[in-house]
Amino acid sequence: MEDRLSFRLIHQDQSCPARNGELTTPRGVVSTPVFMPVGTVGTVKAIDPEELTAMGYGLILGNTYHLMLRPGTQVVKDHGGLHNFMGWPGAILTDSGGYQVFSLAALRKISEEKVTFRSHIDGLACELSPESAIDIQQDLGSNIMMVLDECPPHDAEKQYHSDSMARTTRWARRCLEARSPQGGALFGIVQGGMHLDLRKQHLEELAALPFDGLALGGLSVGEGPEQMDRIVAAMGPTMPENRPRYLMGVGLPQDIIRAVGHGIDMFDCVVPTRNARNGQLFTWDGPIQIRHAIHTRDTEPVDPNCACPACRRFSRAYLRHLYQANEILGVRLNTLHNLTFYAELMGRIRKAIAADDYDRWSQAALHRLEGLEIEKKV
Amino acid sequence: MEDRLSFRLIHQDQSCPARNGELTTPRGVVSTPVFMPVGTVGTVKAIDPEELTAMGYGLILGNTYHLMLRPGTQVVKDHGGLHNFMGWPGAILTDSGGYQVFSLAALRKISEEKVTFRSHIDGLACELSPESAIDIQQDLGSNIMMVLDECPPHDAEKQYHSDSMARTTRWARRCLEARSPQGGALFGIVQGGMHLDLRKQHLEELAALPFDGLALGGLSVGEGPEQMDRIVAAMGPTMPENRPRYLMGVGLPQDIIRAVGHGIDMFDCVVPTRNARNGQLFTWDGPIQIRHAIHTRDTEPVDPNCACPACRRFSRAYLRHLYQANEILGVRLNTLHNLTFYAELMGRIRKAIAADDYDRWSQAALHRLEGLEIEKKV
Repeated sequence: MEDRLSFRLIHQDQSCPARNGELTTPRGVVSTPVFMPVGTVGTVKAIDPEELTAMGYGLILGNTYHLMLRPGTQVVKDHGGLHNFMGWPGAILTDSGGYQVFSLAALRKISEEKVTFRSHIDGLACELSPESAIDIQQDLGSNIMMVLDECPPHDAEKQYHSDSMARTTRWARRCLEARSPQGGALFGIVQGGMHLDLRKQHLEELAALPFDGLALGGLSVGEGPEQMDRIVAAMGPTMPENRPRYLMGVGLPQDIIRAVGHGIDMFDCVVPTRNARNGQLFTWDGPIQIRHAIHTRDTEPVDPNCACPACRRFSRAYLRHLYQANEILGVRLNTLHNLTFYAELMGRIRKAIAADDYDRWSQAALHRLEGLEIEKKV
Repeated sequence: MEDRLSFRLIHQDQSCPARNGELTTPRGVVSTPVFMPVGTVGTVKAIDPEELTAMGYGLILGNTYHLMLRPGTQVVKDHGGLHNFMGWPGAILTDSGGYQVFSLAALRKISEEKVTFRSHIDGLACELSPESAIDIQQDLGSNIMMVLDECPPHDAEKQYHSDSMARTTRWARRCLEARSPQGGALFGIVQGGMHLDLRKQHLEELAALPFDGLALGGLSVGEGPEQMDRIVAAMGPTMPENRPRYLMGVGLPQDIIRAVGHGIDMFDCVVPTRNARNGQLFTWDGPIQIRHAIHTRDTEPVDPNCACPACRRFSRAYLRHLYQANEILGVRLNTLHNLTFYAELMGRIRKAIAADDYDRWSQAALHRLEGLEIEKKV
């Protein structure tokens, strides 16, 4: 199906591997580099889909594992898919469920055929095969599907990574086979842990297959920012140029800024939404902990230059009060702020690339962001 | 101060004591009968002030007790008052804190001078006198303040009610004395428990004082709907005609409909917001429990005729899913629905009064609403 997804490279920054592109989906056009808010169980936590659109988001992530368990694929299918179910007019990328099976589920057993596990909600026995992972994503009406992969612990034995990777490739082929003509786009996932030789081999295997895009998996799973940067720096620029490059589960603003510099186009992470619920608000000078007593009588906004409702209409003292009183409005305002920050971040990234200025811009941005990280630790 | 508050009686229904009026506050004009959403700690739970305005609300209630404890009166005063602190452009009525002191606080001791108690949050010793209750409400910038009263248990001894009532009158005079020239309007509160003779005596005492309005307190505190209706039916029509009549802490749609029939103009209650958080959604055919399994695959909206976001854009199955998954969006949508229902309820009430049709309209509405109440119990 030609109109599943097309990727157009718009501009290659002259100073580094960063690049601007455009993803055309049946649900609209999305500029890359793009950040996808995470809608775990059919809602980007605390946010209305209309607010996502207003902030400029056109592509979000849905979690196959969570949705298959609750409300169950059939309920979503009854509504004609996840877009209708959750009232989201934009595009949706779904993970395959693999990552959650390997991080959340209990009594996990993996075979060549499939993975069996017990639901983290009610302990019910479930299974996921490459074929059923695609079936479910198709029932959800996903615009961009991910192959079922195994994401081993980053510090697993090299032999385990190698064997797992080989199976992930076999599963990736089965996912391609399983996709129906009406199915969405499908991305392969490069594993290989912290071993660059394995990573390169896996990329080669997957790039040879007709995937619509390629992702780096198994990163941001506890290996630390330096290790992650090492892998992304080596892999990003070598990934096929004419297909979108997706770094899964990343990350903090500084992680994204660095990875864009290595040629990555797509990101997703729970950080802006989860950290908002914990009272961490992102700013260009690093994050603020709104619960801190220093904000108790502060009548100033979090960031006077931010366009979000929290900054336009409320003070730090009010946001702190809402946090202390455990009020839902506080969670909402914090989340709107952080997602507005991330949208603004991606906009500035794209602008710097368009100006062939990404290398300089990103160094300056990292300097500001990380200056505050140090301050935070004090 | 002439422009604190003015009340204009617009239309007296010919079929019953129900009446339409208009409250003019420094923060806008409010049509009565009016329902005030409750903004306990400086936020109507889960709702943005802009959404309140969009639903047609122009007057909300703030809780002196909660705000004096957290964030503390000074923090609100730093912001120039509660309107600025919480970003609310409309009018605010504040209770005096008396009700919460008598229902929430610990180690309560009442004297002629004041009431001392311990905070339900951190156990700190606090006190409230008629004068400090007014001071705090003035610091909050309240448009309509309430006198400090004692609200005894409805089944307290008659002698206790009588003695308490007499003190509440003395406190009411002290509140009037304590008000500064720049202070907001001030309402007296009629107590007297379930004793009509006491109630009538107290009303007489308070009506003789220059209050801007009069309230019935000590109702909806466990006495049951029949007892409440008996008191409101007897008292409502005898309250001063040219001043607003406020039934505190009420209530369910059917309570409001009945009380309007007895000439009441103002209401406040946590029911639409609290019940929303528990998954109870109001409809004209009575409430729906969204968690019930019957809604699991129901792709229809809660009420196809409702203008709220929940009904315009989401299905019952989606709302049920959000409830089951404990998602904040579910709380928000449920709250928006219930507050939209209450706004619509008050609009229909005012329309029926304007048409001199309130007696007939209210019987029909109660029949529909209570039909479902019975169904709910099955």
